[in-house]
Amino acid sequence: MSDQFKSLSALKDLGTAIVQSIDNEEFPTLELPGRGTGNLVYDEESKQFVLGNARVIRDSSNLRHIKSFTQLVWVASYAKQLLQAGRTSSLRDLYYSSEAFGVEFTDQAESDRTVTDLECLTGIAREAFGVFPEERSSIYGQVTMRYTVPGYEGRDVDLTLSPDGLPIGPALVTADPVESKAELILAVESGGIFSRLIETRAWERFNAVLIHLGGQPPRATRQLMRRLHDDLNLPVYVFTDGDPWGMHIARVISTGSANAAHIQGLTTPDAEWIGVTADDISKYSLPSEPLNNADLKRLDELSKDVRYSDSIWQDHIRDFRQLQRKAEQQAFSRHGMDYVVDKYLPEKIH
Amino acid sequence: MSDQFKSLSALKDLGTAIVQSIDNEEFPTLELPGRGTGNLVYDEESKQFVLGNARVIRDSSNLRHIKSFTQLVWVASYAKQLLQAGRTSSLRDLYYSSEAFGVEFTDQAESDRTVTDLECLTGIAREAFGVFPEERSSIYGQVTMRYTVPGYEGRDVDLTLSPDGLPIGPALVTADPVESKAELILAVESGGIFSRLIETRAWERFNAVLIHLGGQPPRATRQLMRRLHDDLNLPVYVFTDGDPWGMHIARVISTGSANAAHIQGLTTPDAEWIGVTADDISKYSLPSEPLNNADLKRLDELSKDVRYSDSIWQDHIRDFRQLQRKAEQQAFSRHGMDYVVDKYLPEKIH
Repeated sequence: MSDQFKSLSALKDLGTAIVQSIDNEEFPTLELPGRGTGNLVYDEESKQFVLGNARVIRDSSNLRHIKSFTQLVWVASYAKQLLQAGRTSSLRDLYYSSEAFGVEFTDQAESDRTVTDLECLTGIAREAFGVFPEERSSIYGQVTMRYTVPGYEGRDVDLTLSPDGLPIGPALVTADPVESKAELILAVESGGIFSRLIETRAWERFNAVLIHLGGQPPRATRQLMRRLHDDLNLPVYVFTDGDPWGMHIARVISTGSANAAHIQGLTTPDAEWIGVTADDISKYSLPSEPLNNADLKRLDELSKDVRYSDSIWQDHIRDFRQLQRKAEQQAFSRHGMDYVVDKYLPEKIH
Repeated sequence: MSDQFKSLSALKDLGTAIVQSIDNEEFPTLELPGRGTGNLVYDEESKQFVLGNARVIRDSSNLRHIKSFTQLVWVASYAKQLLQAGRTSSLRDLYYSSEAFGVEFTDQAESDRTVTDLECLTGIAREAFGVFPEERSSIYGQVTMRYTVPGYEGRDVDLTLSPDGLPIGPALVTADPVESKAELILAVESGGIFSRLIETRAWERFNAVLIHLGGQPPRATRQLMRRLHDDLNLPVYVFTDGDPWGMHIARVISTGSANAAHIQGLTTPDAEWIGVTADDISKYSLPSEPLNNADLKRLDELSKDVRYSDSIWQDHIRDFRQLQRKAEQQAFSRHGMDYVVDKYLPEKIH
């Protein structure tokens, strides 16, 4: 597996550099990109956040650095063990494992940050080291994937196999698409809509790969969407609740998040948000609720966010502010059980 | 599908009774078991909570009852539509759909309660009407299930098919086990441990069906565990975090919850909690944290709970109080990546 080779050799390079310093009787140091907001740059060309040129040094000769230096080296060695044993680990598991080696983290937040440090240092996402969060999205559609994980190498799975959908876990993220009848990807926020689209055979009607996001999806989900988009040439449509939070799910899929600015390959720049827009709430007479203070505050933040600088997004924000209301995806149920499939989606997916 | 027939005929009986009252020029009334704490009875024989004899009347001639009467009749009619169309619905979806019919619920909590009313009235669980929550557990193991849902009738799925596990959704809950090499069910609280058990092929070593509970599992998960236990004659082992909350997950699997006292078939009375017990924390030298106030308060509640009246459970509570510490399942990582599989589980599963 070339990805595994790449990850292992990045870890080996890291280890070799440290050992060489010691052999040269120097204190090893590590240099990684700064992740402070001051070093976040919006790259107009790739339409996503990237890290700027600021650098942070972890110097083992500095008493104040020695703890974070050690933590980082330990995380790298844990990642190497995972790769060599063909295991995956949750972030939580990694945190607990540290104690076995006398490496101390104050809490899981600290070990999570150290994992991010390793990503920055190597330029490789933690998923490629076998480290995943516990949350999972689901997927369903007419695509066959070929597994690469140990014990399943070369085995194919048809993504319509389980009518409940398949979880996007470590095995599916590292699988390769080998066959497809799909023409587009339809990513939806809620599990109820995901189930309805499966049951009504909307996946067949729209030739769609369905993805259940469940709020802001795990990075693995965004990574798989991007891969299916690139490898199978599938346009991506994102269908969320009609509120600032739903809109932002779509925006993060297109332009990335500040937290993952150091990782490439997670965004699908031409993913399209198909609603629920403020305009849809009026047009389809959807049952709606007033925007609350948190919603309004979020709209203010988004209006100043560089990812919303295009006029189309400023318009969406303006429309919500004018309407002062929000609606969930399920609101289409007002017009009947299958309305969203029979009417709304065909109108929105060109 | 005989279950579907049973559900439909219960709804038909309900509708017929209402229509007959009207034909007789009487105001229709509905009588259902009371669900207040005063009507909760612990049944020593079945070792679970059941409802007592108290009854609640919904009288359509009473202005104060007319709203809840109408809501209940609407939920019944929605359930009938779902069954006839072969659809499922999330509880959230049901809530939003009500607006289409001018039926008002103050919030989803109210529509959820009305669904529970329908369960009490008919004695049938909402899953049999196609109504599910959005949360899903996962399953993995050497069992083949045969689907009964529309579009998948008669199709078999091998539960080792996806190395990420399969979601326990509407389709799997209504499927029938047709083949099995499994000798036991091992239900685990955390996703990290679930993945580790798959990757290390612990399912093969223990001939185990693995279930990821993820905290207190959805009812559908408990229902499937009970069915696999009964149909395949599999003992159930529950492996949770070592704290009052983990212990109670195991206890609810055995003895049921107060909230579902009106539903039978969810409990597996002989399911066994294999830890993490307070004793294990000491015995395996697990990294642990002090119990906090919420944990201690929970221990006090459980010590008075009828489901903990056996001395074995009082002992578990006493041990936690004496040790004053708790540990997560992942704490076994202290002793190495596969320790939980190589050492702990073999010692615990006889």
